[in-house]
Amino acid sequence: MSKPSTPKGTRDFGPLIMARRNWMFGVMRKAFERYGFEPIETPAMENLQTLIGKYGEEGDQLIFKILNNGDYLNKANEEALESRDSKALTSSISKKALRYDLTVPFARFVVMSRNDLAFPFRRYQMQTVWRGDRPGKGRYQEFTQCDADIIGSDSILNELDLIMLFHEVLSELGVPGYEIVFNDRRLLNGVARACGIEEQFQDFTVALDKWDKIGSDGVRKELEERGFSEVTVDQLMKLFAVLASTDSSQRLAGMKAMFIEGDDEANAAFAEVVELIAMAKASGVPVAQLLFDPTLARGLDYYTGVILEVRVPDAPIGSICGGGRYADLTGIFGWEGVSGVGISFGADRIYDVLEHYDAFPLEAMTQPHALVVQLDEEGRNDALHATQHLRAACVRTVLYPDVVKLKKQLKYAAELNVNFVFISGADERSKAVWTVRNMRNGEQIQFPLEEAVSFVSSELNF
Amino acid sequence: MSKPSTPKGTRDFGPLIMARRNWMFGVMRKAFERYGFEPIETPAMENLQTLIGKYGEEGDQLIFKILNNGDYLNKANEEALESRDSKALTSSISKKALRYDLTVPFARFVVMSRNDLAFPFRRYQMQTVWRGDRPGKGRYQEFTQCDADIIGSDSILNELDLIMLFHEVLSELGVPGYEIVFNDRRLLNGVARACGIEEQFQDFTVALDKWDKIGSDGVRKELEERGFSEVTVDQLMKLFAVLASTDSSQRLAGMKAMFIEGDDEANAAFAEVVELIAMAKASGVPVAQLLFDPTLARGLDYYTGVILEVRVPDAPIGSICGGGRYADLTGIFGWEGVSGVGISFGADRIYDVLEHYDAFPLEAMTQPHALVVQLDEEGRNDALHATQHLRAACVRTVLYPDVVKLKKQLKYAAELNVNFVFISGADERSKAVWTVRNMRNGEQIQFPLEEAVSFVSSELNF
Repeated sequence: MSKPSTPKGTRDFGPLIMARRNWMFGVMRKAFERYGFEPIETPAMENLQTLIGKYGEEGDQLIFKILNNGDYLNKANEEALESRDSKALTSSISKKALRYDLTVPFARFVVMSRNDLAFPFRRYQMQTVWRGDRPGKGRYQEFTQCDADIIGSDSILNELDLIMLFHEVLSELGVPGYEIVFNDRRLLNGVARACGIEEQFQDFTVALDKWDKIGSDGVRKELEERGFSEVTVDQLMKLFAVLASTDSSQRLAGMKAMFIEGDDEANAAFAEVVELIAMAKASGVPVAQLLFDPTLARGLDYYTGVILEVRVPDAPIGSICGGGRYADLTGIFGWEGVSGVGISFGADRIYDVLEHYDAFPLEAMTQPHALVVQLDEEGRNDALHATQHLRAACVRTVLYPDVVKLKKQLKYAAELNVNFVFISGADERSKAVWTVRNMRNGEQIQFPLEEAVSFVSSELNF
Repeated sequence: MSKPSTPKGTRDFGPLIMARRNWMFGVMRKAFERYGFEPIETPAMENLQTLIGKYGEEGDQLIFKILNNGDYLNKANEEALESRDSKALTSSISKKALRYDLTVPFARFVVMSRNDLAFPFRRYQMQTVWRGDRPGKGRYQEFTQCDADIIGSDSILNELDLIMLFHEVLSELGVPGYEIVFNDRRLLNGVARACGIEEQFQDFTVALDKWDKIGSDGVRKELEERGFSEVTVDQLMKLFAVLASTDSSQRLAGMKAMFIEGDDEANAAFAEVVELIAMAKASGVPVAQLLFDPTLARGLDYYTGVILEVRVPDAPIGSICGGGRYADLTGIFGWEGVSGVGISFGADRIYDVLEHYDAFPLEAMTQPHALVVQLDEEGRNDALHATQHLRAACVRTVLYPDVVKLKKQLKYAAELNVNFVFISGADERSKAVWTVRNMRNGEQIQFPLEEAVSFVSSELNF
């Protein structure tokens, strides 16, 4: 038998990691609900046709397809089989696939459920997604996204809500030094119009988006390679001059100066973004943690307005959250013109950052609080009784299942990392008490059972 | 564009269903942790080799396999391709599959993590599993199992713990009239020895297990078809005579009478089961809800001792939970002789039962509590302020994002099913108050903001 393993890019989560993850998801869930988002879940398996073509050609390649059950070759595309054409064969032997993100399934859900939903519809969704990416630091093939979207409203107050949600959740989680970085596709459109490159908008933003990795010289080179004229490139490079200031308002003003005079669309977007910053500031989001960045473009085609990203500059990882405004997400499923805005918390990367900084709180633990040991067969019913009382008081309790040497049971208690051990032998029984041993300091006190349970509850801050 | 849909056997969960599911999972999670079980999670995708051969031939067919990414035909088994042999081709174009249950991944996890775990190891795991079954009532292709296992101990106290956990969770969930039904493979072995059919044990138990569906005449016929002699069948049919009593002790005694005199193994098991019932009774499990059933066999081969099932006799659905003792679960991954016992809550079926009886509590809701409306642009900052205060007090709050007619906003409040609406116009502003409308009774009261938030918190029983 070969040694058991998990597929590359996937992981087991043991008790400590799980306790921390559950704590993290609990913080998010409570915040989502406080903000009036309601939970939904969609199936892991979607029809392949629901997913294909939604993430670009590269995305299509990274979607995990599920082989049809039974004699799947029976209905396979014969021509593709003959020519050994994997790509052409796929749709004839696979009807289902694993979801690649939560946004496309959400759009499908909204279209299918629209008669049952109140708009604007605010939903949150915390589920696993799967991508056949090459595994690496902070990049898994199976990971969890936590999304909040508001669909059916154009108001900038929704963007404000989501920025505040970022701030609240990341503060509560204790993510150190995070920056909420934002831009607006409409401002980038203004720049493109000013440079006369509306037709090459995607080339422009794809190059711009690499600034983080390749710097302004790299972007210049990339723009030249993509066929932009020297004059245009020079003009576009002014965007980087804006970065000289770390003040969002000054950066915005610098970008505005690039627009063609009288570009109403860009100017309206500018006014909205200025207002957004002012409102966020008034609502308590620290100015230093909300940063306008004109080089932020984000790859996804469907964004049309504000785009958002969260970074932890000192952590050895990329962005930990993202999001933005989309004018028409449900159009792909036949319902056009419904605008929305959404954000996504990258739970696994947030976890990695918190672990990197050793920032998990002590309460993110679910190990048992108490072990009840057994010294002799005569004590079994008392031990069962004590176990039941402790659990009724919400003390997480394990009863050692066998009568073995106390030393062995105490070793187990130490391995379990319990706070207290409950011991009762002939001596304790004759006095109708339990010996309670505090495993943190070795102290032992004897109490009648009820008092022992109260003592432990109060020591555990219940 | 074709109408969007989800694959057969899968479902979307909207806000109401999700709130109820989250409540249900919350009850289970708390109980698991009170009982000292620690959480783990394993990947949805396992190596195909981890899963194949663990669930019988039928199971192998029902496992969802994931197509290799990229040019998968490049490394395909040429012979199988040529002969269009789907079954032979699979392992050459699919290296991964979706987990089919939580038990096999748990066994793999234990073997891989054994140096980091304290034994007896108690874990719980609540995750989705996938099976290519024909969808039907209570049968989905994607569903959630909630498992608790104790591995590394032979003590019957573990069985007791799990029976009490069944009782506690199902009571707390309000599942009406459930019965915890149990048997012991070792007792069935005793019967088989007495009838001289140890070699045909599996044929015997497979037939027996169908009693629920086909009755004793059906089982008789099935046994005859499987080649058992008339004498043996007559002897085996005595098992059904035991069912004449509804008292577990009498049933047990009836079964014991079938054993060969001096069958120490069967008699020892008998003594253990009698003790288990006594302890469960002493621990508060109602006798009428813990039923010994000698016809319960459960299909899975790996069970070797006590086997458990939970039924709701009046609900139109099969068993809602199952479990049992296994002498050697990790042997399939190279670590032999580790005994354990585990149970599984079928979350989707429990949900269906609770829905059937309309038994969900009112608290299983996550709809927003409050809507802050906007009557004019001048009031926006006040509205933002009120929203923030409500949320800080944990009131789930939505701010209506636009200034539109009050009627439209109140209609939205009704659709969201909020408890309270916060209204402020020029009049309220001049008096520095908010009008709070109770949507359940139409009452409106004016308060300063702080008082309004306190009022709402207390009305919501915070």
